[in-house]
Amino acid sequence: MTELIKAAVLTAVNKPLEIQEFPAPAPSTGGAVVTVAYAGICGTDIHLKSGNLPVPMPIVMGHEAVGTIAALDPALSTDINGAPLRVGDRVVWSNNIPCGRCHECLVLKERTLCKSRKIYGINRTSSDAPHLLGGMAGQIALEAGTAIIRIPDEVSFEEVIALGCAGPTALHGMLENLTIHPGDTVAVQGSGPVGLAAAIYAKQMGADQVILLGAPASRLELALEIGACDEVIDMGIYTDSAARLEKLRQMTAQERGADVVIECAGVPAAVAESLDLARPNGQVLVLGQYTDHGATPINPHYITKKQLKIFGSWGFAEAHYVKYVESLPQLRKRHDLGALLTVFALEDVNEAMDTVAAGQCTKAVLKP
Amino acid sequence: MTELIKAAVLTAVNKPLEIQEFPAPAPSTGGAVVTVAYAGICGTDIHLKSGNLPVPMPIVMGHEAVGTIAALDPALSTDINGAPLRVGDRVVWSNNIPCGRCHECLVLKERTLCKSRKIYGINRTSSDAPHLLGGMAGQIALEAGTAIIRIPDEVSFEEVIALGCAGPTALHGMLENLTIHPGDTVAVQGSGPVGLAAAIYAKQMGADQVILLGAPASRLELALEIGACDEVIDMGIYTDSAARLEKLRQMTAQERGADVVIECAGVPAAVAESLDLARPNGQVLVLGQYTDHGATPINPHYITKKQLKIFGSWGFAEAHYVKYVESLPQLRKRHDLGALLTVFALEDVNEAMDTVAAGQCTKAVLKP
Amino acid sequence: MTELIKAAVLTAVNKPLEIQEFPAPAPSTGGAVVTVAYAGICGTDIHLKSGNLPVPMPIVMGHEAVGTIAALDPALSTDINGAPLRVGDRVVWSNNIPCGRCHECLVLKERTLCKSRKIYGINRTSSDAPHLLGGMAGQIALEAGTAIIRIPDEVSFEEVIALGCAGPTALHGMLENLTIHPGDTVAVQGSGPVGLAAAIYAKQMGADQVILLGAPASRLELALEIGACDEVIDMGIYTDSAARLEKLRQMTAQERGADVVIECAGVPAAVAESLDLARPNGQVLVLGQYTDHGATPINPHYITKKQLKIFGSWGFAEAHYVKYVESLPQLRKRHDLGALLTVFALEDVNEAMDTVAAGQCTKAVLKP
Amino acid sequence: MTELIKAAVLTAVNKPLEIQEFPAPAPSTGGAVVTVAYAGICGTDIHLKSGNLPVPMPIVMGHEAVGTIAALDPALSTDINGAPLRVGDRVVWSNNIPCGRCHECLVLKERTLCKSRKIYGINRTSSDAPHLLGGMAGQIALEAGTAIIRIPDEVSFEEVIALGCAGPTALHGMLENLTIHPGDTVAVQGSGPVGLAAAIYAKQMGADQVILLGAPASRLELALEIGACDEVIDMGIYTDSAARLEKLRQMTAQERGADVVIECAGVPAAVAESLDLARPNGQVLVLGQYTDHGATPINPHYITKKQLKIFGSWGFAEAHYVKYVESLPQLRKRHDLGALLTVFALEDVNEAMDTVAAGQCTKAVLKP
Repeated sequence: MTELIKAAVLTAVNKPLEIQEFPAPAPSTGGAVVTVAYAGICGTDIHLKSGNLPVPMPIVMGHEAVGTIAALDPALSTDINGAPLRVGDRVVWSNNIPCGRCHECLVLKERTLCKSRKIYGINRTSSDAPHLLGGMAGQIALEAGTAIIRIPDEVSFEEVIALGCAGPTALHGMLENLTIHPGDTVAVQGSGPVGLAAAIYAKQMGADQVILLGAPASRLELALEIGACDEVIDMGIYTDSAARLEKLRQMTAQERGADVVIECAGVPAAVAESLDLARPNGQVLVLGQYTDHGATPINPHYITKKQLKIFGSWGFAEAHYVKYVESLPQLRKRHDLGALLTVFALEDVNEAMDTVAAGQCTKAVLKP
Repeated sequence: MTELIKAAVLTAVNKPLEIQEFPAPAPSTGGAVVTVAYAGICGTDIHLKSGNLPVPMPIVMGHEAVGTIAALDPALSTDINGAPLRVGDRVVWSNNIPCGRCHECLVLKERTLCKSRKIYGINRTSSDAPHLLGGMAGQIALEAGTAIIRIPDEVSFEEVIALGCAGPTALHGMLENLTIHPGDTVAVQGSGPVGLAAAIYAKQMGADQVILLGAPASRLELALEIGACDEVIDMGIYTDSAARLEKLRQMTAQERGADVVIECAGVPAAVAESLDLARPNGQVLVLGQYTDHGATPINPHYITKKQLKIFGSWGFAEAHYVKYVESLPQLRKRHDLGALLTVFALEDVNEAMDTVAAGQCTKAVLKP
Repeated sequence: MTELIKAAVLTAVNKPLEIQEFPAPAPSTGGAVVTVAYAGICGTDIHLKSGNLPVPMPIVMGHEAVGTIAALDPALSTDINGAPLRVGDRVVWSNNIPCGRCHECLVLKERTLCKSRKIYGINRTSSDAPHLLGGMAGQIALEAGTAIIRIPDEVSFEEVIALGCAGPTALHGMLENLTIHPGDTVAVQGSGPVGLAAAIYAKQMGADQVILLGAPASRLELALEIGACDEVIDMGIYTDSAARLEKLRQMTAQERGADVVIECAGVPAAVAESLDLARPNGQVLVLGQYTDHGATPINPHYITKKQLKIFGSWGFAEAHYVKYVESLPQLRKRHDLGALLTVFALEDVNEAMDTVAAGQCTKAVLKP
Repeated sequence: MTELIKAAVLTAVNKPLEIQEFPAPAPSTGGAVVTVAYAGICGTDIHLKSGNLPVPMPIVMGHEAVGTIAALDPALSTDINGAPLRVGDRVVWSNNIPCGRCHECLVLKERTLCKSRKIYGINRTSSDAPHLLGGMAGQIALEAGTAIIRIPDEVSFEEVIALGCAGPTALHGMLENLTIHPGDTVAVQGSGPVGLAAAIYAKQMGADQVILLGAPASRLELALEIGACDEVIDMGIYTDSAARLEKLRQMTAQERGADVVIECAGVPAAVAESLDLARPNGQVLVLGQYTDHGATPINPHYITKKQLKIFGSWGFAEAHYVKYVESLPQLRKRHDLGALLTVFALEDVNEAMDTVAAGQCTKAVLKP
């Protein structure tokens, strides 16, 4: 008799997710079945549920997860780094599979721009077998082509899931665009998971001073506590752009502004502000503008006059996820990543989603 | 008896320039006196005259010039490249002298950001000796520290002055920021001198297809004629942004848009448009926003979504001027640079300025 | 009755190639059959025949070819750039298929380092169907995953095959490593196909002065004739390293040496010499050391003292082949690429191989 | 009556340094007089004394020093970063003054290649006033043009001098050439001051695993103790190159080798070994080949086959010294820099020099 596996399924826009059961899958050719230890809830999931970003339904949600290999197809013998894979291994995986053959994948070499990427928990319906193609479930069926990565022994499941997809997202934009030097000041706009990840990696890449601009105060305190940043500017206190600029300038040598600004706020006006916060010849990374809120007033004169460098980055591909996992042994020595987590049972998925939507926790994860 | 040298002097905002006479200067320590062959008139000169950009007055105008060494201080024996300098040599020089000792010059290594740059024809008054510190004159007194460059034998004065300061300005932004590959499409917004220089250098750096968006039609025809670009989009015909975008897409492979967009239009809205014209993961260089026209609606979602790279660049320093002169022997083989010139006598400076202000010629130069 | 297709097959080391016949193949799923117009002979083919580089035998040789689509599987509807593909289209293809899933392909993002690349004409035996997996044949069977590229209308077969695999090989190393600026001097060591391609692309990427060091005199004359370089240093005249260095210095401004040196000579001693030829802070690209000739005396003091940048590059992947084809419309306007070719009938493959081995032609190609 | 200042003077090659007395200097125009707190002894000083590197004599030695401003010319009001300077401020300075006007300084933008750099303690004789132009003295006279940097309040003199000129030297090479990512393995060859500085900065720039190859065991233990590296390979145990390579491979994921190798050993053979230690497509920085020991056998095939990137770097300029000081507040939190020091009295300079020559201490400094 086949075991049944529980999963949180979105069946219609704005409807609560349902807990459904599906037969435990067998690994497909070149694939694996993973027993999920934790599935993260991401801000994007809130957009999916509310219909802001269209998805096929019904769908097992969850594009962030970690777990243990339950079954393995014989054709799959190593992880993406060439390390042997066995049943029982603790693993994580890049949540998307670019086609690997198109102009974007091969010529532009930007797999994140591939138009036919398959993404677990985002564009894989649960209508047909193997059904379990999202992380919010007892098991997930990983297909051939998924970049599976063994988790280093000293790293816990909690530490892998703590930054969720924000970790590789920040890393992608930062590694491929920014030059951060010892002694630099980095300002991060936004204190959600992407902002926290960006702050942590700014430190990791050598910044001397990381300043986090965000809210609410409790999240900023947590950020300081785990050493994600050195200083904060509380947007609840510094409510207008000019006040924040003034405050940041005072914090930087000779009031020059930040060497690097990383926008993770998601609000269009934050980009206009980032051009002010950056020092002359500084760098700006626009990570937060995932959804289209239309045009906002921006003064392009600053781009020429200050000789700025502005970069956009979107999502991540396999390489960034590998780098993310490689960085965790060192990150965990410096930061208590586990302190970011709030754990919910899988069955409490709707409560967990509401908590995220209300900004009442830093990182919610489900434990199936 | 000392010879008298004629010069075009701005004495008050919006007043016609006066032709005044000053005693022929002797070279200062480490300096040289140059007999001017041509002085260019730049769009910036129109701004200076109208008071948009404040300058000390009275002032001998002209920040672009070429000429022949009339006198040389014994302490000055070579040009910046180490080539010997002698009276009678044909030379050109970088028009600005950064201090070379400040944070911007030495730590940021962006001499164009130096706050105490001395600029011939822009911030050097003619009140005191040696008076002749601008190019619109029979002679100019170059001080120690000026990067003087011998003009290669095969290059004429006309060819050096044809692109004026637009040549090193475009080169600065392009060399330090852009990656142009063989096969690339480069779109240039704006058909003034900076736009023409950008188009010419895009070709020189390996672009396969250079598309110039500008007006009027006569200037676009001239651009095609001298091979500055391969294709044009006439803004007199394609008057709105959507139409230009559609046209450009049709010109590019699979309608992807331009690999590189260089904004040389000077209008803030051009920057909003540049984000549309660029292909996913493309590059945008904002060269044209020299004056502050305030904020304009720009959609920052495109920066993240398309993963764009946007760079600003301002002016130039010695290295760019040297590269500019080094490139001329090759440029002149491919383009009839002299065709860009309209020559006026020094005495006709006001007529020449009016012609430039009215956009009735491509490049006006004065012959003292 | 199935048509029979002729192919040049290597059956044993150092044995002449045999002309064998195989049944005309049908396209495999996602694949295509191409009627070969020309197949190039490359220096590597000489090594394969002599056993220097081991290959599976019997094998249809030929890793460079161009042709016309004879048959197309319905699953294959566009080329790698997204352009529609139809029977009768003139095409070329990247000769190797990296696995696309390993650490090298996905994490290092260096598909040329993939250990399980399949290469037409190099590691595909003709033992089994479809047999025709090399270019020296009437037809070649291209499998799913091959990066097929439509040839632009204005470009002839002769122009595509003229640089053979040397074109994308040079482009790979140059685009990913070198910074060539207008005004730069580039020295190329070696006047074989890779050297000629490197010289042509150095010019294309903006170099003002390209100096080719090589032999014999006839090949250098051809290089000058088609504008591949501006100057030559004949190694038959300048036989020792010191003399070549002295000569090159005299050709460069202030005797500084070359801004960029591209080693395409294949002789280990050329790398020692490249460190001398480069100016202080110059760049060296080592393209020619494909085979292991062991250690040679090199003075590493120059690397520190001159602050050199030295890059190695090997082969090419899809992106470089696409860039290569994209660059041809512009290249053909500047250089008579067809002048490089010597055409042999497929049946004369052994004579053609001998001619290449003896260095008696610049680029030998077979016409099936 | 003028105060007399003691200084350690080299009067002839291989002669012990003499303690001489000079009148306390007054600041020259734009200059400062600094009371020296510590002067470092560098390996280069041993070469100077032994005549390996020629210097003008007599000379006050010492190109590394820190101290307190004793007197300040009114023309000097700020440090290089624009911070106000006052008598009593604790300062350090870049030990060399490039001319700032030559081709190397302005066009190549490599001030370290300037042929007319003035270097305190290296090419400034004590024959004439102000005599005190080296650090091994009670006071040093700094001239206009010296990049003086205020020491941040939380940083001690000991912490600034601990890495001596090795700090900015390593930083120069690393910041301008290397890309170090979170998760990377960096191998450093050589455990002298440059090696230790390179290891510390590799960690600072994000490396996960830093492996130091060197000797003697005591120095490796100290390196581990202060957290300069994560692992060591003791050259006293692993005496041949093949054994070290094997050991390093075992320490890296899938035995790929190091992502980055930094050669700080000074022995030519180390460069041959670095090509082995680096992973395919890895980076090698050659920092250690300051003196010319002639050619050594190196296999250039690896450069092409492994697609390596090899960089050379020499000395440092102002920007690197500023970055060095900016990085110290963060470095001191992570590493007990003071543990590297062995302090000698100025009068014991010859004993200190002998100790350094014998490799019996990590970093010897003089306290005047």
